[in-house]
Amino acid sequence: MTEIKDSNIQIIQGGICAVEGVKAAGIRKGKYGLALILSENSYVAGTFTSNQITAAPVDYSKKIIKDGKISLIVANSGNANCFTGKVGINDNNEMVSLSSELLNIPKDKIATASTGVIGRKMPMELISSLIRKSSQKLENSKEASKDAAKAIMTTDTVFKEFAVQVTLKNNNVVKIGGICKGIGMIAPNMATLLCFIATDGKIKSEALQDSLKIAVEDSFNMLSVDGDESTNDTVLFIANGKSENEIVDSNGKVDENFQEGLNYLCKNLAKKIAYDGEGATKFLEVDVFGAKTKEDAKNVSKSIVNSSLIKTAIFGEDPNWGRIVMAIGNSKADIDPKNLSIAISSGDEVVDFVKKGNILAYDETSYLKEAEDIMKNREIKIIIDLNQGSVSATAYGCDFSYDYVKINAEYTT
Amino acid sequence: MTEIKDSNIQIIQGGICAVEGVKAAGIRKGKYGLALILSENSYVAGTFTSNQITAAPVDYSKKIIKDGKISLIVANSGNANCFTGKVGINDNNEMVSLSSELLNIPKDKIATASTGVIGRKMPMELISSLIRKSSQKLENSKEASKDAAKAIMTTDTVFKEFAVQVTLKNNNVVKIGGICKGIGMIAPNMATLLCFIATDGKIKSEALQDSLKIAVEDSFNMLSVDGDESTNDTVLFIANGKSENEIVDSNGKVDENFQEGLNYLCKNLAKKIAYDGEGATKFLEVDVFGAKTKEDAKNVSKSIVNSSLIKTAIFGEDPNWGRIVMAIGNSKADIDPKNLSIAISSGDEVVDFVKKGNILAYDETSYLKEAEDIMKNREIKIIIDLNQGSVSATAYGCDFSYDYVKINAEYTT
Repeated sequence: MTEIKDSNIQIIQGGICAVEGVKAAGIRKGKYGLALILSENSYVAGTFTSNQITAAPVDYSKKIIKDGKISLIVANSGNANCFTGKVGINDNNEMVSLSSELLNIPKDKIATASTGVIGRKMPMELISSLIRKSSQKLENSKEASKDAAKAIMTTDTVFKEFAVQVTLKNNNVVKIGGICKGIGMIAPNMATLLCFIATDGKIKSEALQDSLKIAVEDSFNMLSVDGDESTNDTVLFIANGKSENEIVDSNGKVDENFQEGLNYLCKNLAKKIAYDGEGATKFLEVDVFGAKTKEDAKNVSKSIVNSSLIKTAIFGEDPNWGRIVMAIGNSKADIDPKNLSIAISSGDEVVDFVKKGNILAYDETSYLKEAEDIMKNREIKIIIDLNQGSVSATAYGCDFSYDYVKINAEYTT
Repeated sequence: MTEIKDSNIQIIQGGICAVEGVKAAGIRKGKYGLALILSENSYVAGTFTSNQITAAPVDYSKKIIKDGKISLIVANSGNANCFTGKVGINDNNEMVSLSSELLNIPKDKIATASTGVIGRKMPMELISSLIRKSSQKLENSKEASKDAAKAIMTTDTVFKEFAVQVTLKNNNVVKIGGICKGIGMIAPNMATLLCFIATDGKIKSEALQDSLKIAVEDSFNMLSVDGDESTNDTVLFIANGKSENEIVDSNGKVDENFQEGLNYLCKNLAKKIAYDGEGATKFLEVDVFGAKTKEDAKNVSKSIVNSSLIKTAIFGEDPNWGRIVMAIGNSKADIDPKNLSIAISSGDEVVDFVKKGNILAYDETSYLKEAEDIMKNREIKIIIDLNQGSVSATAYGCDFSYDYVKINAEYTT
């Protein structure tokens, strides 16, 4: 997870506060938490859950970012403020009003996000007190980024942040930093995905939105913990231009290195979420090659990463490749069993089960030991070649353990 | 599960052998089993998995039933004969040849089905020996139906059979009986759905196929254990006409009572599968009312019955209705949160969480005790009213327990 993509992208410390002009703060109290991210007069882009039922802050932030600029993000954990009707809308507005007053920021420059239990009243007395305290702690520091990342955690076991320094095509340098929480895209009720990213590059909302959409498609949208999608998923990307370095050229094209840096950052945050998947004991990456279309490649990789039977086999360290065949067949992709190749890998070791339709693992004994050894690793890669075209995709996930059941059976409030 | 639908449908004993002219046999040896179902010169209909990768017996039986008539079904458990290439096709043909020889039945009147591990060679010596022994045990008896039902079990914990006697509109009487196995529609690798149904009514293949399709749509197709669909799912329905009673009138219309009886039988077999879902401790029924279209009603009920987060909450006896909101929102159905009603029920007890968008369970204390009491039951019903139209649907499933993980993590061969 710490490989350096290429010489144009360098991993740096500091999370979202690695970016000049960004201040953060975070406080936790019991199962509740509150984070503030301040970056004055920043262009903003966002992607949100596709669940038909959305939380009050999702509806609110979608509207707010249409203006193109914000200065503050207020995010709470512990309560999703979803399916809470007018009361929830008022509570969300109160979060905005109070922050506006305390930090002297216009209300329409404040976005909100929430994560937690659905269908419960927000504990506004506590939330307000956390906003007051956080507003006095805002600073640009490594600690502040960590505090904010910790404040938005729910069932997460570790806080999640990542930052890169990107050398643009014209050799100028910009930074991108982010924090996120969640134990699935795709796992509501105290496990929503929230992600806040900032850059000091100069880039306006429209280009920022395009750039974010590309990065999210191959990262957070390729992530699965349990196949359920939250009512609260929110990714916000802000650009304050403090570096004075332009990201978009005179033809309106986003700098390639910037896009690569953002993709890399989002993939790394997504991987951190998969690593920390609810009850996860193993990280699963599914690489699909040789698809006719991008959609096919994504369908196959997601079908595998979502399969309960594959996820339990990974947990049991059982190289049961028949289940991979089943999951490939269940995808809507254009496939031909006669062309299919299936392998598993970890580190440098690879075991081929099927190569262009020929079953190498037909006789149990020949592969079982080697494959079982690979399954013992913490990071497992399933590699599929459809041999139908030249498009590829990667999905990220984790295994399905006793603890997943425990966490979700014994947990509401 | 034993209520009598109405006076035209009476539950009877004997499983598939409740039907005159049907002989069955079954033998188990370790993790392998073999069942024969003999009903000479019977019209046949079938529905099969929609997985793109299909087992050798699925491909074979699809072709065989096109002729319209069969006399014998040969089914094995322990090996799926899937992704086994030419060897698998030969092994399937050998099952047919041997049965043909032993029972003096033309090869093209024999259908096959397999369930078990994918991508392994069939143990043909054992299978052949089981076919030989079974062929000498064929008889029309309660015991024979049970033996066949037991022989096709894999991770099933109980054998599954059901039979009804139907009084047709013209007061004639026919019987329908069936056996099935599986712990999900929708759960491959030793958990495929296989179902064999017979009737002594007079009905030809085309009408039989239409009738079966209707019954399967609202039963097996509304069943979910883990959302994965097998490569081997097979439902075969045979009609031998022994009763001499016509099911189809002169206008080509299938007798309504017959259709109702078949629907009832398929629903009861589907419920038995849900009850016996891998690791299941609770049976879950999701009734959705007030949808605009049948598709909407099905989408919402399936989205709920498939949700890992709801299934773990049911296991944990946690009335976490926020997760139901999430699952409804995740369906593609036409919904309006303001019109939504959500309740849970068991037996005569009902607790409303949300009524036409008004949250009755907003304040935890008011509903928690009652709802928690309901959750303690073995059979849980989730009742949704979308209040958008007048169409309804019901889905069947079970909870998600530690044992589901255990069964699927520790099990291949």
